[in-house]
Amino acid sequence: MPPTPSPHTPRAVVLLSGGLDSATTLAIAKAAGFQCFCLSIDYGQRHRAELQAAAAVAAAMGASEHRVLRLKLDDFGGSALTDNSIAIPVDGVEAGIPVTYVPARNTIMLSLALAWAEVLGSHDIFVGVNAVDYSGYPDCRPEYIEAFERMARLATRAAVEGATLNIHAPLIDLGKAEIIQRGTELGVDYRLTVSCYQADALGSACGACDSCRLRRAGFVAAGMADPTRYAA
Amino acid sequence: MPPTPSPHTPRAVVLLSGGLDSATTLAIAKAAGFQCFCLSIDYGQRHRAELQAAAAVAAAMGASEHRVLRLKLDDFGGSALTDNSIAIPVDGVEAGIPVTYVPARNTIMLSLALAWAEVLGSHDIFVGVNAVDYSGYPDCRPEYIEAFERMARLATRAAVEGATLNIHAPLIDLGKAEIIQRGTELGVDYRLTVSCYQADALGSACGACDSCRLRRAGFVAAGMADPTRYAA
Repeated sequence: MPPTPSPHTPRAVVLLSGGLDSATTLAIAKAAGFQCFCLSIDYGQRHRAELQAAAAVAAAMGASEHRVLRLKLDDFGGSALTDNSIAIPVDGVEAGIPVTYVPARNTIMLSLALAWAEVLGSHDIFVGVNAVDYSGYPDCRPEYIEAFERMARLATRAAVEGATLNIHAPLIDLGKAEIIQRGTELGVDYRLTVSCYQADALGSACGACDSCRLRRAGFVAAGMADPTRYAA
Repeated sequence: MPPTPSPHTPRAVVLLSGGLDSATTLAIAKAAGFQCFCLSIDYGQRHRAELQAAAAVAAAMGASEHRVLRLKLDDFGGSALTDNSIAIPVDGVEAGIPVTYVPARNTIMLSLALAWAEVLGSHDIFVGVNAVDYSGYPDCRPEYIEAFERMARLATRAAVEGATLNIHAPLIDLGKAEIIQRGTELGVDYRLTVSCYQADALGSACGACDSCRLRRAGFVAAGMADPTRYAA
């Protein structure tokens, strides 16, 4: 059981995918003294195991609450992550924006986090984007996060009433190895996390997609044993 | 049957609530030469009749497509429009942000429109916000719309590849009477639209909520007969 937070403990909404980055982000938010409300979006991603991983991570890290919101982005299609007719690339990270990019995903997720933050009376949103060892998605870049924050500061009742909304992206300048080191210091159990774009129902990783490659290289660079369960 | 659009006709995503403003916005987008893809969000609003109105308006105006995306914002609560335990005010428009404000609603809807626009290869999104005869929502202000557009221009694959995304808010500086006059010139059938925050299942309006008051005053100021069906 997590200790009961004081009513004065500030609240944060943490976007939690169930992957390595968002688990580390949750640990950072908690270490910064926030009462953490974790939000996962079931957007029709084919790697369903990440949602179970998110629940396990939220419980292990003592989150105050974990919600999964259903949003059928697969109706729009346009991404290998939501459209089963587009194959997940397994031949290495290529230049340009890959087919695993989900149109406007971070904008949508941050918007939903903003809505929940407003209802919770929270002025802080944490998101685990990073722009170093990443897949080249436009909505992971620092200038994008800054623009979202500027917009969010005009969007809400709290903003009109004088509060300042903060979008925290504490991993944005970190490499994968640094992220793993930081999370390990903060007690993240990476066995619980699922990063693979095509993880099986048990959360076992393919070892070949971009996300698996970046993750595996991170553990190697951090000089740590890789706790990932790979499919046989 | 609408004429088959040329493959060179630019596409626009139009947020269509089923109310007076968004129907007029659709007419303006069509008159500007866009092939219109209408998006309605079923966010758990208690005035369900507006979604049926949206479908009727899209069909009447020759939209290329109309989609309704389900998103359970009522899970978050925090608004009289999604939480049945909060009463809709019927005593006139008050100062400040009213309880009918839905946290981050326009941010979420514009984000979903952005996702669909990206999949459609569209660079134009139309939204019927206005900041004259309105309910005082923070996310209807011009500075908010401009900030969203700046963010959106950094958020997508198209943006990275050099396209410029435009958020069109053609009603933003118009009063309700001007909106009605403009829509009437463009052939909008306002009998199809539902504005009431607590319309009944048949779309009949209460005549007393803020939205009804603004709408009724608009027809009076425009010197036009009010075609709204009011509940007996």
